[in-house]
Amino acid sequence: MSNRYSNFSFTYKLTGDTPHSRLGKIVTPHGAVETPAFIFCATKGAMKAVTMPQVKEAGTQIILSNTYHMMLQPGAEVVKKMGGLHKFCGWDGPMLTDSGGFQIFSLGHGGVAAEIKGKGRPQGMASQVKIKEEGAIFRSYIDGAKWILTPEKSIQVQRDLGPDLVVVLDECTPFHVDKTYTRQSMHLSHRWAQRSLAEFDRGNNGAQALYGIIQGGVYEDLRREAIDFVNDHDFFGHAIGGSLGADKGQMAEVVGFTAPYLRKDRPIHLLGIGGISDIFMGVRQGIDTFDCVHPTRIARHGGALVRGNERGHLQIRNAAYREDSRPLQEGCACHTCQTYSRAYIHHLFKAKEILGMQLITLHNIHFMNDLLADIRHGLATKTLGAVEKKWV
Amino acid sequence: MSNRYSNFSFTYKLTGDTPHSRLGKIVTPHGAVETPAFIFCATKGAMKAVTMPQVKEAGTQIILSNTYHMMLQPGAEVVKKMGGLHKFCGWDGPMLTDSGGFQIFSLGHGGVAAEIKGKGRPQGMASQVKIKEEGAIFRSYIDGAKWILTPEKSIQVQRDLGPDLVVVLDECTPFHVDKTYTRQSMHLSHRWAQRSLAEFDRGNNGAQALYGIIQGGVYEDLRREAIDFVNDHDFFGHAIGGSLGADKGQMAEVVGFTAPYLRKDRPIHLLGIGGISDIFMGVRQGIDTFDCVHPTRIARHGGALVRGNERGHLQIRNAAYREDSRPLQEGCACHTCQTYSRAYIHHLFKAKEILGMQLITLHNIHFMNDLLADIRHGLATKTLGAVEKKWV
Repeated sequence: MSNRYSNFSFTYKLTGDTPHSRLGKIVTPHGAVETPAFIFCATKGAMKAVTMPQVKEAGTQIILSNTYHMMLQPGAEVVKKMGGLHKFCGWDGPMLTDSGGFQIFSLGHGGVAAEIKGKGRPQGMASQVKIKEEGAIFRSYIDGAKWILTPEKSIQVQRDLGPDLVVVLDECTPFHVDKTYTRQSMHLSHRWAQRSLAEFDRGNNGAQALYGIIQGGVYEDLRREAIDFVNDHDFFGHAIGGSLGADKGQMAEVVGFTAPYLRKDRPIHLLGIGGISDIFMGVRQGIDTFDCVHPTRIARHGGALVRGNERGHLQIRNAAYREDSRPLQEGCACHTCQTYSRAYIHHLFKAKEILGMQLITLHNIHFMNDLLADIRHGLATKTLGAVEKKWV
Repeated sequence: MSNRYSNFSFTYKLTGDTPHSRLGKIVTPHGAVETPAFIFCATKGAMKAVTMPQVKEAGTQIILSNTYHMMLQPGAEVVKKMGGLHKFCGWDGPMLTDSGGFQIFSLGHGGVAAEIKGKGRPQGMASQVKIKEEGAIFRSYIDGAKWILTPEKSIQVQRDLGPDLVVVLDECTPFHVDKTYTRQSMHLSHRWAQRSLAEFDRGNNGAQALYGIIQGGVYEDLRREAIDFVNDHDFFGHAIGGSLGADKGQMAEVVGFTAPYLRKDRPIHLLGIGGISDIFMGVRQGIDTFDCVHPTRIARHGGALVRGNERGHLQIRNAAYREDSRPLQEGCACHTCQTYSRAYIHHLFKAKEILGMQLITLHNIHFMNDLLADIRHGLATKTLGAVEKKWV
């Protein structure tokens, strides 16, 4: 590890389950993360519907917050004045922020996250973001004010926010753009990455480590070019971004021709992916960390993660649960499953009690941490296949 | 105490702070309540925005749930099947349910709680409830279905719900009705109370104790008649209900000519009152328990209880708190005040994060429990006046 990141380390060992699967450990100034790990989204500096002690009690190792949201509300300068994001939101463990780019381009390309991930079609909305060499120009969704996010600004904002892990600004291209655009965009992202590294160095006080991003869409040759770029630059870790294709098959293909070629001595993050089968796929290709709003988002709509269900979750509003005395998931050790019946949580949703969202969120966080712990156990004992059968 | 309530007890001692103020202890099958105590409203079988372990950790001794809401959703038979309200909602301490009457009449008289308490004016809405000798006929706000709540039905539903303390059905008269109506209504409530006692005896298995209610509005002679009635019947405890007048002055007057004449050997509850100065007023007249949705309701709208503020709370949405690094209340030991700044909670409300409601709810519960603990300390050390100066 270079001097840039002397307060951080990443160690790993290949496990032999697949040529690439591995167990690892990311050490940050706020503690260590055993990998593979799931990073939970505290989008606006808060885990939606749960307190940080509850998040920790559910086995969470690391959370992330979104630079885009935090810089618009309450503003990075407020967070800095209040002592940084860790203190502000009451989380004392490892933390990552993204660059702000994903949300800007998600809005700018007129789409939602699903579209960016390649699962939808272009919406045909007029673009609300302008991309220039300097950076991205957009308007605040809060008050319409004009903002420009440059690579330097993104790093500065992330420095003010103060998480352990920060990410370079990139243009996140959606699925529907063509190869020519994807290539040009990737080259722009690489120039932005170099400017991000330079800005990172200007303010580096040892408290943060920088991730580079691999773009290139669904095109293997472009991904290879992006891989060479990040491998050759002094990032602490790597994050696979951009479009991962139209379906799970294409996602596996893109991850398969990307992750294995990234340097082994750096942690690899797969941006925005959190489906259970996708996590097993990623782990087999050497992915160390995942993030996704899915577990906490579906919780607020009554979706409780369970094993052995085709959709991966049950919908607690369903009348079938009205008198179901079982916990959400048999054998789950979370507070929700240890205390409440499905019937009770069904009642909470019928009665519009927000406690229902809180209880399922708690469960879903616990469930994901259980899953990742079991995956680490499977890797340590070379039984990943058996673990997968238990969960998928 | 009579045989009816052999698993319960109430002990007290007059403290000498006033002729009536006292320290007491209500013992129930689910534990003891040191009095004076505040009873928190888990209206629909859930403390809004907090889990029961959090409620307990905040020092809560006893909660109540509303029969009216529970019988409409999910239905008393579901709660019974699920093992009763304690198990259903995860609370293992003392619990009270009301009779269901308050909500029915609150809807029927076209008013809201504030109106019933005598703080508002009649709304002029057509009555949606019919009161007959047999009981109250009303329509469900959920599906429009016709219901009849008799004194017997109320006791049966409360038996199915299974709390420790249950309450007779009464007609809760609002402020705007005249003395003639108040008298007739009170007599009806007394006949209902006798039927409630009879039904209570038919199903009594020692797990519950019954409270009688004192009606009579703002009329001293009617209140005296109601006091004689409850004193002469074998209730475990007494609850002061009905209109307490138009303002705090009249409330103090009504409580003053009611509470001191109730039997001393039974606990006295003041229904629906939770203002800080009102609690001191009640304690001085011998009130043992209070309940009110106020502390948890204002929390969900950004109102955090604090000392030395004219309104009794601060409004966290106020721009003044944007960069306020102090806790909600200096010196408060709750998780919220120990962890977060006003600036953070202000941010949560601006960002529409429900965690904001959760954190203030936690604080307000802790605050009320602190207040009541301090009042008990004041009574034990004959320093109630000094305690009041600290809080009001």
